[in-house]
Amino acid sequence: MSDVRVAGFRFAGIHCGIKKSGKPDLALLVADGPVACAGVYTTNQIVAAPVVQSKARLAGRHTAKVVVINSGNANACTGPQGDSDARQMAAWAAMVAGCQPMDVQVCSTGVIGAPLPMSTLESGIPAAYEALSDDGLSDFAEAICTTDTFAKLRQGSAEIDGRRVTVAGVSKGAGMIHPNMATMLGVVVTDASIAPAELDPLWRRVCHRTFNAITIDGDTSTNDTALLLASGRAGGAHLKDESLDQFETLLHEVAGELAKDIIRDAEGGTKVVELTVSGAATLADAAKAADAVSLSPLVKTAMHGEDPNWGRIIAAAGRSGAPLDPDRLTLSMDDVVLYQDGVWQGVDAEASAHAVMCKPEYSVRLDLGLGSASRTVFTCDFSADYVRINADYRS
Amino acid sequence: MSDVRVAGFRFAGIHCGIKKSGKPDLALLVADGPVACAGVYTTNQIVAAPVVQSKARLAGRHTAKVVVINSGNANACTGPQGDSDARQMAAWAAMVAGCQPMDVQVCSTGVIGAPLPMSTLESGIPAAYEALSDDGLSDFAEAICTTDTFAKLRQGSAEIDGRRVTVAGVSKGAGMIHPNMATMLGVVVTDASIAPAELDPLWRRVCHRTFNAITIDGDTSTNDTALLLASGRAGGAHLKDESLDQFETLLHEVAGELAKDIIRDAEGGTKVVELTVSGAATLADAAKAADAVSLSPLVKTAMHGEDPNWGRIIAAAGRSGAPLDPDRLTLSMDDVVLYQDGVWQGVDAEASAHAVMCKPEYSVRLDLGLGSASRTVFTCDFSADYVRINADYRS
Repeated sequence: MSDVRVAGFRFAGIHCGIKKSGKPDLALLVADGPVACAGVYTTNQIVAAPVVQSKARLAGRHTAKVVVINSGNANACTGPQGDSDARQMAAWAAMVAGCQPMDVQVCSTGVIGAPLPMSTLESGIPAAYEALSDDGLSDFAEAICTTDTFAKLRQGSAEIDGRRVTVAGVSKGAGMIHPNMATMLGVVVTDASIAPAELDPLWRRVCHRTFNAITIDGDTSTNDTALLLASGRAGGAHLKDESLDQFETLLHEVAGELAKDIIRDAEGGTKVVELTVSGAATLADAAKAADAVSLSPLVKTAMHGEDPNWGRIIAAAGRSGAPLDPDRLTLSMDDVVLYQDGVWQGVDAEASAHAVMCKPEYSVRLDLGLGSASRTVFTCDFSADYVRINADYRS
Repeated sequence: MSDVRVAGFRFAGIHCGIKKSGKPDLALLVADGPVACAGVYTTNQIVAAPVVQSKARLAGRHTAKVVVINSGNANACTGPQGDSDARQMAAWAAMVAGCQPMDVQVCSTGVIGAPLPMSTLESGIPAAYEALSDDGLSDFAEAICTTDTFAKLRQGSAEIDGRRVTVAGVSKGAGMIHPNMATMLGVVVTDASIAPAELDPLWRRVCHRTFNAITIDGDTSTNDTALLLASGRAGGAHLKDESLDQFETLLHEVAGELAKDIIRDAEGGTKVVELTVSGAATLADAAKAADAVSLSPLVKTAMHGEDPNWGRIIAAAGRSGAPLDPDRLTLSMDDVVLYQDGVWQGVDAEASAHAVMCKPEYSVRLDLGLGSASRTVFTCDFSADYVRINADYRS
């Protein structure tokens, strides 16, 4: 997909020297000018310096011109030195791009606790700027990877208000990644024309159903960041009402695939499961039950074993804190109903469900029968490889 | 330990025919008369019939004479038939023991979703009654096991108020057990003289620090039950004040070892880790952080790899919802300080912490530096065997 272009943005991904492997480790995005930008960041209280600073820069402002990301070093748990290094990284990026540091979003991903190699970045950032090109998004996607096994790049387009609107983006892995906790990063750009103040609520809604709906092991990183930038170069007035809804649908598709790519690439994971808890009395109940089921090690090992172990699923929902009535529970896998209104549907249903679970991707639906709220999350199985990958002593 | 006796109680454990393996599968305890009894039950909303009924029988009453437990079948998710079967089991036990069904506590553990083999129990319960003996507690311990690799029996005694008081008990495994979710059972008996109304708060306090402080994979069963019965046969007036405190210390020791035995026997677990979160502003904060750390798959796989990966531990605390200040965190393993007031203590400290983690049992302490509340839980590591055991397709 080297021909992915989104008007108003240039991208680069180079090796500047942080990774000993020689793989790309510095990604740069520069917009033609300050553009509408929204960010969603980790909720972990142990939060890396670049996240604190990037979040503060966007607060109440909603514009940016540059995104600079290094991989191989997370600049997390690095104290005052880390704060100063992250600030310096933004200053260098602003200098080459001809803007203020306020217009720069900085992300770091990789090993935590080690200081950033600043001299490497000092020469790397101008070199990345020299490498910028309209079709550099795939290089950018490569350069943000840590132990990802493939670069993640998705695009989509639609006719909205009579104009062709393009959305493209990249992501990197969220968990199960050796040697340290991993970071989820997502950067999505569009040429749509959207009012900066509209972008933030729109991006939060989309992230809630995409980047914030994927669960691998429940461990959130110190560095998670998802950014959306809109150049407006598709032309026309700011999208609103029905047009904005159409754009949200397009954005949801692209961000959803980027989020699922992270699950598809989860180290030690072999299945992508779309889990929906429906029929809850409230959205909070649906979310509680969906989180408990999607994070349960017993459920996830059963997924790995392709075992339609409905007892583990309903027991996980039962301890989630969401109110439920055992006699109203209905559980299905794709179109196979395994348990209906509290009654097990027998060995034939179980055999059919087993067949569903043998597929690499499938859906599980648990209906609580109590209301109309639902929550969908994306999860993966737990394999013995997950343990092996994450238990290896760091060397 | 076949000579464990507690005055006022007789025990039996026999094979009645539920387990195809021929192993013991029916346990019976009969007190000389109705005695003080307290119970702590699963908080899962998906709850098995025997738990619902046993809990209701003790409510506001605090006495029992009989405990009957079958292994091999959990009588969970069995609908109206399960209710009726559990009630019948209590009726048969009451009949042989010459008491009312109200005086019977019933527990079941094993496969869920399958109906209890009632004709087997109908002949088994009288046979168990015939087998009762003063020193039958070790048979009782064997008969409640499912896939436990050893029977768990602990005892202790102390001189309280000038009288020798004995506490003895049994437990069985809580998780990581194939082929279905497992059940934690604990039954502790004592000859101490304790007012029935005092027993319930006492047992809740002790369970909070023992049976409810062990975490294997976070999945609670439909059948978890912990019972305490006190015959008063040690003589004297009801213990109170300082004497009751001395008894609580003794009870805590016995119940604590029984709880840790469950961790020691966790299938796929190879380490027993005592995790304390101290310095929290509130008990709820301490518990939130302790739960998040002790259940984090990334932390548990690092424990398996004997990797002093402090980043995973503090990041798990950081996402727990408990308020924390990164610059006040101090983390140690046994007596090795790995991270102090937000600063990593270097490679030598890390090497020493690695040596601690190579032991089969050790402690981890995370001090938040914000207050004086603490919570201690017992956890184990995640091994590749855990996945293998729990992913096998049920056959």
